[in-house]
Amino acid sequence: MMILRQPRYNATRRVKTLNTADIAAYIDANRDEFMAQLFEFLRIPSISTDPVYADDVRRCANWLVDHLEDIGMQTVELHDTEGHPVVYAEWLSEKEDAPTLLLYGHYDVQPPDPLDEWETAPFDPTIRDGKIYARGATDDKGQLFAHLKALDAWLSTVGELPINFKVLLEGEEEVGSAHLPAFIAENKEKLAADAVVISDSPMFAKGVPSIVYGLRGLAYLEMTVRGASHDLHSGLFGGAVPNPINELSKIVAALHDESGRVTIPGFYDNIVPLDDEERRAFAELPFDEEEFQRESGVPKLVGEEGYTTLERIWARPTLDCNGIWGGFTGEGAKTVLPARAHAKFSCRLVANQDPDDIAKKAQDWVAELASDAVEVEVRVFHGGPPVLTDRDNPTVRAACRALTRVWDEEAVFTRGGGSIPVVATFSEVLEVPTVLMGFGLDDDRLHSPNEKFNVENFYAGIRAAAFLLEEAAR
Amino acid sequence: MMILRQPRYNATRRVKTLNTADIAAYIDANRDEFMAQLFEFLRIPSISTDPVYADDVRRCANWLVDHLEDIGMQTVELHDTEGHPVVYAEWLSEKEDAPTLLLYGHYDVQPPDPLDEWETAPFDPTIRDGKIYARGATDDKGQLFAHLKALDAWLSTVGELPINFKVLLEGEEEVGSAHLPAFIAENKEKLAADAVVISDSPMFAKGVPSIVYGLRGLAYLEMTVRGASHDLHSGLFGGAVPNPINELSKIVAALHDESGRVTIPGFYDNIVPLDDEERRAFAELPFDEEEFQRESGVPKLVGEEGYTTLERIWARPTLDCNGIWGGFTGEGAKTVLPARAHAKFSCRLVANQDPDDIAKKAQDWVAELASDAVEVEVRVFHGGPPVLTDRDNPTVRAACRALTRVWDEEAVFTRGGGSIPVVATFSEVLEVPTVLMGFGLDDDRLHSPNEKFNVENFYAGIRAAAFLLEEAAR
Repeated sequence: MMILRQPRYNATRRVKTLNTADIAAYIDANRDEFMAQLFEFLRIPSISTDPVYADDVRRCANWLVDHLEDIGMQTVELHDTEGHPVVYAEWLSEKEDAPTLLLYGHYDVQPPDPLDEWETAPFDPTIRDGKIYARGATDDKGQLFAHLKALDAWLSTVGELPINFKVLLEGEEEVGSAHLPAFIAENKEKLAADAVVISDSPMFAKGVPSIVYGLRGLAYLEMTVRGASHDLHSGLFGGAVPNPINELSKIVAALHDESGRVTIPGFYDNIVPLDDEERRAFAELPFDEEEFQRESGVPKLVGEEGYTTLERIWARPTLDCNGIWGGFTGEGAKTVLPARAHAKFSCRLVANQDPDDIAKKAQDWVAELASDAVEVEVRVFHGGPPVLTDRDNPTVRAACRALTRVWDEEAVFTRGGGSIPVVATFSEVLEVPTVLMGFGLDDDRLHSPNEKFNVENFYAGIRAAAFLLEEAAR
Repeated sequence: MMILRQPRYNATRRVKTLNTADIAAYIDANRDEFMAQLFEFLRIPSISTDPVYADDVRRCANWLVDHLEDIGMQTVELHDTEGHPVVYAEWLSEKEDAPTLLLYGHYDVQPPDPLDEWETAPFDPTIRDGKIYARGATDDKGQLFAHLKALDAWLSTVGELPINFKVLLEGEEEVGSAHLPAFIAENKEKLAADAVVISDSPMFAKGVPSIVYGLRGLAYLEMTVRGASHDLHSGLFGGAVPNPINELSKIVAALHDESGRVTIPGFYDNIVPLDDEERRAFAELPFDEEEFQRESGVPKLVGEEGYTTLERIWARPTLDCNGIWGGFTGEGAKTVLPARAHAKFSCRLVANQDPDDIAKKAQDWVAELASDAVEVEVRVFHGGPPVLTDRDNPTVRAACRALTRVWDEEAVFTRGGGSIPVVATFSEVLEVPTVLMGFGLDDDRLHSPNEKFNVENFYAGIRAAAFLLEEAAR
């Protein structure tokens, strides 16, 4: 196996004739080196939500800067924000009519807890049974790195890219991309492109290349219910004072009705309904509901009445509690009547729900549901709007061809249940569509213990990303 | 100020004529020494629920053994159990017709969390504004220690006790006295008495000496709701799988109806209702409802419809959550759909509810309320039956006279909302009534941060305990 260390960009580098066979061969020859580089990337605990890891997030950004320089990008920049840094790189072609793609990815990751459920440490990447286990393996370090290796392959073999290519990597996706919209707005010229490419979504199934044309948005809130001014003895006060845990539970319970619908007034206003064609297309996908249930491990699949599982996770808005806490949670029995109880909850949104509007409606509804014997405060975290993309866009079509070349299967059009808020920003501020071509799988355990990325998907992702450049140049 | 160190019991000690003036003077002269000894006792973190503190619990028991020997008890014993040790001591009179009292107390304490709400450290006793602040200051170290100092006063001045006196101190009250009933059953002869005396209940109000004739029992449970086999991404699965926090909240919310009554079928069966006389007596007590609300700090008092606040906390059964947890509870926003959620909850019981019966009914009811899309497990912790004592018992009357001598006020008869499960054991196994004469106050913050015991109540408690011996001897 050749182990190649890529030199810094050199304008005098020999420019070969376009030869994607060379590119594929280069990717094959450097499998181990690429994996070693990915492991280096995964070892950095770039947890954006926890201030304790702020230095690691920055270290991760610097690592990317070095790497982008190493693979030969013409311009590589680290931009400080009020939060974590943004990394930008570009390679501009001398061809006048070359299209421009903007790759977006995020190098920050979710916290790894609960830590004791990981089979191997989250920041010590390990390959078992053909899978890379690590926090960020697929979300999103492994996937964005596949694109960087595609650029590497082009620049190392052909010596140039067939199109203009820009790279935008942020460190705040997992905390709502607070500072990215401002960065995009301030750098519209620099970021101008024909389309944005993102690999941060799953393939429909193993071996089924997919383009995601819809993403759900997000509104995230945290409510605090306050009863007494301090923890009370449940014997001395129990029965005569409000219990914030009981009151919180009543509010949470009242957020859904019997048919699984969210009760927030106006929650379903203005949403784009699924049309009959979409419902038919979803129904034709090789979706294995039993496998989906097995993967989740739930005793039974449940959700909003009148919709299939795929419709529920792709095209219907939801509300889920993400955390709840209050009172004594240690081992043993403590007869405390706590002063406070808390819950984090979030709504997944579909077109045309607006996160701010939904958050406001949720706040109002919680206030209305709350007993007057307690004080309730609802804090709004970040949100992100939902996305629907035109399936006939040229870059969408180029991505389809690239995927088909790698997997030898027609790409399918799907939606995603998760959120990539920045996609809406690209649409609104840069006025460009986004092509979502993901290399992950639904069982990759994103945000959970034992997150993984299939080794073969990593290498296939590199080839697809490399072919995309060729297809986009046609 | 005289500082006296009590010698070990010496059979040849001079026996003075009964003189309670001497006793009162001795108590006055040794205020600082008694307080220093109490501080030593309070400094031991005898937290019975947490295995980490097991050695401290034992150290506390040994400290009591030494102290009981120091003050001159004839027999002092440490009994190992499968849990924390029991301390026993006795002083038996040579008079044939002397009545026998058995003092019960507990030297274990509740956990101090949340620690950051304490103004001074829970195991570093501090006096501020005439109050002793420490975990266990009033529950129950400070109160039981008042009795030990009364014995000390009698033995140091009169040289003997006017009655037979036995002392039984356990280290597991805060975890349900798991091993005490067996100890009592195995030591019926040793513990035989005319009445049990306990100071582990509050006075009705500052300056109002009180005998508690009713105590609520307890059934304590913990439920776990399991959905997925592992934490899921709420975007990928949200809307199609059960959310254990939402399901847990629905169950908790359904445990009460609109009128504040507990919905567990059969919950109110067989309970002894309040009679009109009791309701009148309660209503005549100088109860300051506004002060009660201020003390709790709740925006509004609420409870079961049709009952006053005193009736709700003394004579009506309740259900309160004591803790709830699940999912992501750290700072920031994590869009996890958790695998599990948990709640601890407990019922306060009144005569004639049975803790095992109520726990079983609660388990069945939770199972019935639970969705079939989740698995629910309900674990039963310790329980304790409720208590009602005859107000005409001779020791009850002696206690009334002793209290009146100290406070110069008629003692009132009240109930307590808390549980002392062992009282039911004394009734069932030893077949003796229990006299509850407490020196604490309702605002002592038992089980909460900043637990305190008024300095004057400590000293008044010593005098009342000393006079009780004289009154019981009449």
